[in-house]
Amino acid sequence: MTKALRIGIAGLGTVGAGVVKILAARGDYLAAACGRPIELVAVSARNSNKDRGIDLSGVRWESDPMALARADDIDLVAELIGGSEGVARELVEAALKAGKHVVTANKALIAHHGTALARLAEEKGVALNYEAAVAGGIPIVKTMRESLAGNEIRSIHGILNGTCNYILTEMETTGRDFADVLKDAQDLGYAEADPTFDVGGIDAAHKLAILASLAFGTEVDFANVHIEGIEKISATDIAFAREFGFKVKLLAIAEKVDGGVVQRVHPALVPEGTPLAAVSGVYNAVAVDGDRVGHLVLEGRGAGEGPTASAVLSDLADIARGLILPPFILPAKKLKAPAKPAMDTHKSSFYLRFLAVDRAGSMAAITQALAQASVSIERIVQRGEAGKKASGDGRLPVVFITHETDEGTMARVRALLAEHEDVAGTPQVVRIEDGELR
Amino acid sequence: MTKALRIGIAGLGTVGAGVVKILAARGDYLAAACGRPIELVAVSARNSNKDRGIDLSGVRWESDPMALARADDIDLVAELIGGSEGVARELVEAALKAGKHVVTANKALIAHHGTALARLAEEKGVALNYEAAVAGGIPIVKTMRESLAGNEIRSIHGILNGTCNYILTEMETTGRDFADVLKDAQDLGYAEADPTFDVGGIDAAHKLAILASLAFGTEVDFANVHIEGIEKISATDIAFAREFGFKVKLLAIAEKVDGGVVQRVHPALVPEGTPLAAVSGVYNAVAVDGDRVGHLVLEGRGAGEGPTASAVLSDLADIARGLILPPFILPAKKLKAPAKPAMDTHKSSFYLRFLAVDRAGSMAAITQALAQASVSIERIVQRGEAGKKASGDGRLPVVFITHETDEGTMARVRALLAEHEDVAGTPQVVRIEDGELR
Repeated sequence: MTKALRIGIAGLGTVGAGVVKILAARGDYLAAACGRPIELVAVSARNSNKDRGIDLSGVRWESDPMALARADDIDLVAELIGGSEGVARELVEAALKAGKHVVTANKALIAHHGTALARLAEEKGVALNYEAAVAGGIPIVKTMRESLAGNEIRSIHGILNGTCNYILTEMETTGRDFADVLKDAQDLGYAEADPTFDVGGIDAAHKLAILASLAFGTEVDFANVHIEGIEKISATDIAFAREFGFKVKLLAIAEKVDGGVVQRVHPALVPEGTPLAAVSGVYNAVAVDGDRVGHLVLEGRGAGEGPTASAVLSDLADIARGLILPPFILPAKKLKAPAKPAMDTHKSSFYLRFLAVDRAGSMAAITQALAQASVSIERIVQRGEAGKKASGDGRLPVVFITHETDEGTMARVRALLAEHEDVAGTPQVVRIEDGELR
Repeated sequence: MTKALRIGIAGLGTVGAGVVKILAARGDYLAAACGRPIELVAVSARNSNKDRGIDLSGVRWESDPMALARADDIDLVAELIGGSEGVARELVEAALKAGKHVVTANKALIAHHGTALARLAEEKGVALNYEAAVAGGIPIVKTMRESLAGNEIRSIHGILNGTCNYILTEMETTGRDFADVLKDAQDLGYAEADPTFDVGGIDAAHKLAILASLAFGTEVDFANVHIEGIEKISATDIAFAREFGFKVKLLAIAEKVDGGVVQRVHPALVPEGTPLAAVSGVYNAVAVDGDRVGHLVLEGRGAGEGPTASAVLSDLADIARGLILPPFILPAKKLKAPAKPAMDTHKSSFYLRFLAVDRAGSMAAITQALAQASVSIERIVQRGEAGKKASGDGRLPVVFITHETDEGTMARVRALLAEHEDVAGTPQVVRIEDGELR
């Protein structure tokens, strides 16, 4: 049997502890499956006294994580600290420079510095694996990187943030509003005390930027992801969406268009009956459209100890088996600088909700204004079941579903309605993704 | 750049032609992604004059496929002929013995001879890859073989035959009966002239036997798959199932139970709202339950030129990248001979449909008979919406949903009802899979 793959783990939070548990429980299996043992040599974490339910006897404790990058008896550093800068970044860079393989679950790090780190890994001929950084236990990185080699990818549609999907599912099920459900999610540990990264769409955008690079052979380009969060989605929107046959989801979409690749994260109305509409609670899912394979959907748990540790183990096993690939499929020097088509050329139909002043002729005035802005309307609901509780005070809840139009036009319509004398307050605008989601 | 991986393709049906097309269209990309070109050196097929829409200039034509196994200038043979015996088997054996890698889409071959072929491949240190043999374009073999290394697998639930799923979906949508829809499917090319392998469950069983080996570290054991097809499912059953909140699917299930692994293929009622219930038409899906990752569901196209060729390309790319793994994860000599727990210890609830004689006291007599057989009833529908057109003639359509009971008991109940004076004709019995299908 070949000699062991000797690893050091930095960070013993839930994921790090989960990895240690699997290595202990499945050591013999992994050795047989990989043709060599995976040996845990050293760990580093902030607190050496905490009880993590893991046995670290015989494992060296390093108070300084950077010691893992320097150690002669370590072949691979697993970075499970997190954060795009600071210790995590320094450790990964140092480990790669020292010619050690790196496995990481750090989406922010890869989204911000993926291409540069890939260059470094390739120079040294080592692996930089990050399956756990995208969609937790779902093997989407390996699928994109290896299984879909025969395909030109047309688009990716993902539900990549479990916190948002949990909140939207709860809002739908209970009819409660965003702030209320968010607070519960925080109490249950499904949302962070500072939820900005999750509900603001940033976490999903990190993951999307990584997937887009894999899909389209471009440098990782987080800076150009269009990002909107779910903070403005109300229970009323979710109820109206249901009346029209849609669910509201935070989608992360990357697609080829004339002029380049659009990357966008935003709430969207998704038709019921499609696989992504059915993804509920903390689950994640990714739908990939390839020119040969057609539509492929992967669904599973996007976070948590077990799923994330499972993904880290997949990366460790690959390296133990000797599979050392360029991190983004093509050698980093061959990755294209992504073209950045303006988001305002993007076209879709839109859900448009606002309160109209309840007077004779107000609807006529509003629809005429829309017609003048060249937006044609597919459906109108005045009040509706979902609007009943939102109406009163001489204001009438109105929802329009538009035909396909572009973002630029819609931005003008939004401004126009916000100022219209027959419209009260700010109109709500949500994109509809009625494209091929299977 | 390392020297090319030189391949020979045997069989130029839709899949073989699809592979040739991808190699032509994506040659440069594959060379960059794999670090070496994949070069098509020779092909062999029955008819050298047929127009397949592919350019074979510069490619050697072998009238005898066995010549591919003998050729000194070929590193890898892609067997795309099909069938568990005959030329396909001889070619794969000869190629492996000659120290050539083999890629195949042949589920019957791997289901019947997988373990022996794996032994041969491992002796020679070559790859035997078969991603395309299971669920077409869905990367389930690679997911089981590589991505889930950190997991003990608890169960697999699959929709593995697109023909059956198409027929059941059509029956549900149109209310037409099996024979009628099958004929249409044959006319459309979705079903073979001899549909036995598909509708009889054998094709799904081939795929299941392969997945069970990967999941449980056992030798491939097709002989012990319990197989029932969809031939006896009627439009009435599908309509009744819907009344109870179920879809009817042909499921392929492998699960760990006390005493070993149960492998079974049969129609089942699947609760609406679960991912497998939502898989419609020719789509395939596999739900894997792992102890760390939890529930993971992969859905995509299970057949056809593009999806199957995509899977073959995944196998070719892996080998070009130097990834040579034991075909069934563990070295073949470490695979366990599977224990074969008797199917009659399997427990589930059941859907039970029959025509009762429409007389006072008949239902009382029947329910009493069931109680004496120790089967308890969760729900009863007499006639129902779905039964209206099936009633008349003094016979009353009745459906029971039982509480959980074992197969042995249910077999006795089936016999008992068949002979009961208040029951007309043969009762229909379908298992209900209300377990964790997400």
